[in-house]
Amino acid sequence: MNKLTKYCYGICLLISIAINILLSIYLFLGGGEKNDEISYRPPLTWSKKAAMEAEAVAAISCSGHGRAFLDSSISNGHPVCECNGCYGGTDCSELSPECAADANSGDPVYLEPFWIQNAADTAVVISGWHRMSYDYVDNTMMSIELENHIRQLHSVAGNAVTEGRYMVFGVGSSQLLSAAVYALSSETASSPSKVLASAPFYSIYKDQTVFFNSENFQFEGDANSWESSDFTNNMDVVEFVTSPNNPDGELKKSVLGGKTIYDHAYYWPEFTPIPGPSDEDLMIFTLSKLTGHAGTRFGWAIIKDKNVYEKVLKYIYLADMGISKDTQLRVLKILKVANQEDGKPFFEFAYNKMRERWERLTSVFSKSTRFSIQQRHPLHCNFFHETRLPSPAYAWVKCEREEDDDCGAVLKARKIIGSSGITFSAEARYTRLSLIKSQDDFELLLQRLTELVSHENGCIEKM
Amino acid sequence: MNKLTKYCYGICLLISIAINILLSIYLFLGGGEKNDEISYRPPLTWSKKAAMEAEAVAAISCSGHGRAFLDSSISNGHPVCECNGCYGGTDCSELSPECAADANSGDPVYLEPFWIQNAADTAVVISGWHRMSYDYVDNTMMSIELENHIRQLHSVAGNAVTEGRYMVFGVGSSQLLSAAVYALSSETASSPSKVLASAPFYSIYKDQTVFFNSENFQFEGDANSWESSDFTNNMDVVEFVTSPNNPDGELKKSVLGGKTIYDHAYYWPEFTPIPGPSDEDLMIFTLSKLTGHAGTRFGWAIIKDKNVYEKVLKYIYLADMGISKDTQLRVLKILKVANQEDGKPFFEFAYNKMRERWERLTSVFSKSTRFSIQQRHPLHCNFFHETRLPSPAYAWVKCEREEDDDCGAVLKARKIIGSSGITFSAEARYTRLSLIKSQDDFELLLQRLTELVSHENGCIEKM
Repeated sequence: MNKLTKYCYGICLLISIAINILLSIYLFLGGGEKNDEISYRPPLTWSKKAAMEAEAVAAISCSGHGRAFLDSSISNGHPVCECNGCYGGTDCSELSPECAADANSGDPVYLEPFWIQNAADTAVVISGWHRMSYDYVDNTMMSIELENHIRQLHSVAGNAVTEGRYMVFGVGSSQLLSAAVYALSSETASSPSKVLASAPFYSIYKDQTVFFNSENFQFEGDANSWESSDFTNNMDVVEFVTSPNNPDGELKKSVLGGKTIYDHAYYWPEFTPIPGPSDEDLMIFTLSKLTGHAGTRFGWAIIKDKNVYEKVLKYIYLADMGISKDTQLRVLKILKVANQEDGKPFFEFAYNKMRERWERLTSVFSKSTRFSIQQRHPLHCNFFHETRLPSPAYAWVKCEREEDDDCGAVLKARKIIGSSGITFSAEARYTRLSLIKSQDDFELLLQRLTELVSHENGCIEKM
Repeated sequence: MNKLTKYCYGICLLISIAINILLSIYLFLGGGEKNDEISYRPPLTWSKKAAMEAEAVAAISCSGHGRAFLDSSISNGHPVCECNGCYGGTDCSELSPECAADANSGDPVYLEPFWIQNAADTAVVISGWHRMSYDYVDNTMMSIELENHIRQLHSVAGNAVTEGRYMVFGVGSSQLLSAAVYALSSETASSPSKVLASAPFYSIYKDQTVFFNSENFQFEGDANSWESSDFTNNMDVVEFVTSPNNPDGELKKSVLGGKTIYDHAYYWPEFTPIPGPSDEDLMIFTLSKLTGHAGTRFGWAIIKDKNVYEKVLKYIYLADMGISKDTQLRVLKILKVANQEDGKPFFEFAYNKMRERWERLTSVFSKSTRFSIQQRHPLHCNFFHETRLPSPAYAWVKCEREEDDDCGAVLKARKIIGSSGITFSAEARYTRLSLIKSQDDFELLLQRLTELVSHENGCIEKM
C-alpha cells in the first residue's frame, strides 16, 4: 500500500513534469505553427495587436453572403458586415427575392476564395514606418523585388516576352493607358496624333483621351472605319488593341499596323488559351484581372523602346510620383503566391472557376434562339499544354430578334443589368454581362437568365 | 524518512501541477500581452507568419544608420540593410568621410522615430482578400471611415474648415494639383485658361501643366508679373497658392484673387503657427508632409463647389479609378494615431523636431555674412495656444556676395547639395535646403554648413 502510494506519486510527478516540459517547448516555439521563412521564433510584440484585429474581423460571419473589413464602418464597437448584391440584414442572411442580377461591372471578386484559402502566405504586416521615403534605395519609385516577380510570372504563364524589355508600374492599367498615349503621340506634330481602337472597344480609351483634351492627340473613333491605305507613313496614329478583347474576348491584332498599345489585361490562362508569349512594342497588364485585386490599383507596362519607356516614366512621375510603397509590398506578397509551383495552383483554380461558369452559361443560352453569345474558338494553350476553349471574363450577348434593338432594355425588363453595346461603340443590340463577380452574383445572374430563356420558350419556370 | 519522501513527493507534485495550470492559462490567453480593442483572445492562426516576418525584419540592426524592409533585396536568405546617405557596409556602419550632404529632396523621413515609437498602434495586417472590389460598399472609391478621420484631424489641428465641404482623395497631392487645374479651367473657353503661381513656387505646377499640354489651359508663369488690373472679370486664370510656401515657408495669399488652388501641404502645426482654419474654395493637403509618409501616395482636396468637386472626382476616376484600398487602410491606421489625445503627442513630437533643427540651423547662419536664410515672423498658433516662430520644412538660403550669383554651385563646392532657386523660378542666388530628411542627413548637413561658415570666417574648423 505504502509502496503503491509512493509509486503512484512518482508516476504522477513524472507525467506532470513531462507536461511542463512539453508546454514550455510549445510556448518557446511561439505556438508551434509551421514556418518556412523565419529562422528564429521570439514571441510577437508590436505586430500582435494588428494581427488579432485582422483575425477578429476575418472571423465575423456574414452568412457567406458578405464580408467585414478592418475599415468597415463600426456599429456597437464592431465592423459591420458588407453584404453582396441582393443580400441584406446585419448578417447578410436576407435575400431580396425580386432583386435584379447586376452583371454590369468587371469587379473580379470571383477569385476571393483562392486568397482566403491562402491566407497565411498572402497576409502582410505593414509597419508604421514602412518605406516613408519617396524612393527605394536605388532612387527609383519601383520595387526591384516586385519587378523580378512580375518577370517571373510572365515566364511562368508564357504570355509575354520580358527579357531586354523595360517595365513601368502604374496606378492600375488605367493610368498606363493614358501614359502610353502621351508617350506615343508626337509633341512636335503640327496636327495631333489620331487615337483609334477597333469596335467593340473598352470605353475608357475614348473617355480618357477626350477628357485630358491634349494638343498632342485626338480620339478618332473606330479603327475599322479607316483603311490601312488611308494612312501614309508620315500619318500619325496610335491604336489601342485589347487582346483578349473587352467586351467580346477575341484575340485581336492591330488593324492599321502603326504605333500600337496592347492592352493585355485579360491575356492570362484563366481567360484564354495562351498560344505563345506576346512580343509587342508596348504591352500593358493589370493586377485587377490577373489576381482579382481590383481594389489594389496596380498595373505595369512592358516596353521595348527606351525613349517611349522614359516618356511613360516621366508621365507617372509628374502625375503622382509613383505607386504607393504599401501597395507594391502587398502586390509582391500576392505574386509570390501566384508564382508558387510554376503558377499551377493559382491558374488552375482561376481557370476552373471560369470554365465552370462558362459551361453553365452556355447550357442556358443553348436553349435560346432569341439571345446568343459570342462563339468561342479552341486554341492550344502553352500553359496548360492542351487545346481548350477560351473562358472570357464577359459574355457578349446579342438580341437576335429584329425588334429587340435595345438588348439592355430587354434584359433589364427581366431583372438582368448589363452594359449596353453602345458603351463599347457597338450596337445597342449587344450587351456585356460580367462573369467574374462573386459566386452570389453569378448564381443570381444564372437564375435570371434561366428565367429569361424559359419565358422565351413559353413556360415560366421559377428556379 | 519514509514520511519525508512521501511529503517531498507531494510538494513537488503540487508545484508541478501548479506550473502546468499556469502555463496552460498563459497559452490559452495567447501570450498574455495587453490588448485594448480585441474582445476575445484566440491564438493567432493565418496572420502569425506575416507578423513574425515583419518583426524579424524590424529586428535587423543596421547600426542605426539604415533599415531593412520586407521588400528589401535578399542576401543569404535575409533582407539587406538599406543605408542612409553617406553610410555603407552590410550593416551601414561605415561613414564615407568626404561624402556630400544631400539636402535636395523633400523626403520627410524625420518623423520615422515617432512611428517606430508607436509601432503597435500603427501596424496593420492586410489580408490576401482585403477589399478586392473597385468600390466600397457605398459604391464610392473612397473610405468613409478615412474621410471621417481626416475631417477630425482638421478640426483637431484647427487648420481647415471641412463642414459642408466635399472631399476627394488623390494619389498624393500631386495628382490633385493636376485634377484641380482641369476642374477649374473652362473647357468651353475660346482660349485656354491661364495657369499662374507667384515666384518662388514649387516647380511641379509648371511641369505638369506643360507636360499634359491640354487645350483647356496654359502655364503663364509668375503671377507677380501680372497686375490684377490686367485681368477683366471674363479673363480666365487659375492661380496656384502654396501656403506655407515651398520653398520659403511664407504664408501666402492669392495675388490675382481669381480662381485659386490652395496647396496647403505644409499648413500643419509642425511647420507653421496656425492662425486659424483656412476656408478657401479649393484646398489640397497631403499625407507626405503631414505624417512623413511620402512613400504612401495619398492626398486629399477639400472643395466648396459641387461642380468643381464632381470634375475633380471624374478626373481621379478616369486617371486611375481611385486610390488603392490597402493604402487607404494604412492611412486610416496612421491618422487614428495622429488624432490620439487631440493630436498633442504627434504634433508636439513633430514640432519639437523641427524647432530643434531650426535653432541649430539659425545659430550656424548667425555667424555668416556671406549666406543668409529667410526671416521668420512670430504668429499666434491656435493649436499650441502660444505665439511662436514658424519652423518651415526648408531653409531658403541666399548667397549675399555679388559674385556668388550661382549659390548652388558655391554650396556644392563645399559638399552641400541643395535645389537651385531656378527650380522655383527664382534667381540662382537662392538655394533650397531640405530640413525634413533623416537625422543622419540633417547632422551631416549641419556639419557641412558649419565648415562652410567657419571657412568664410577664416578658420577651417573640422567637426
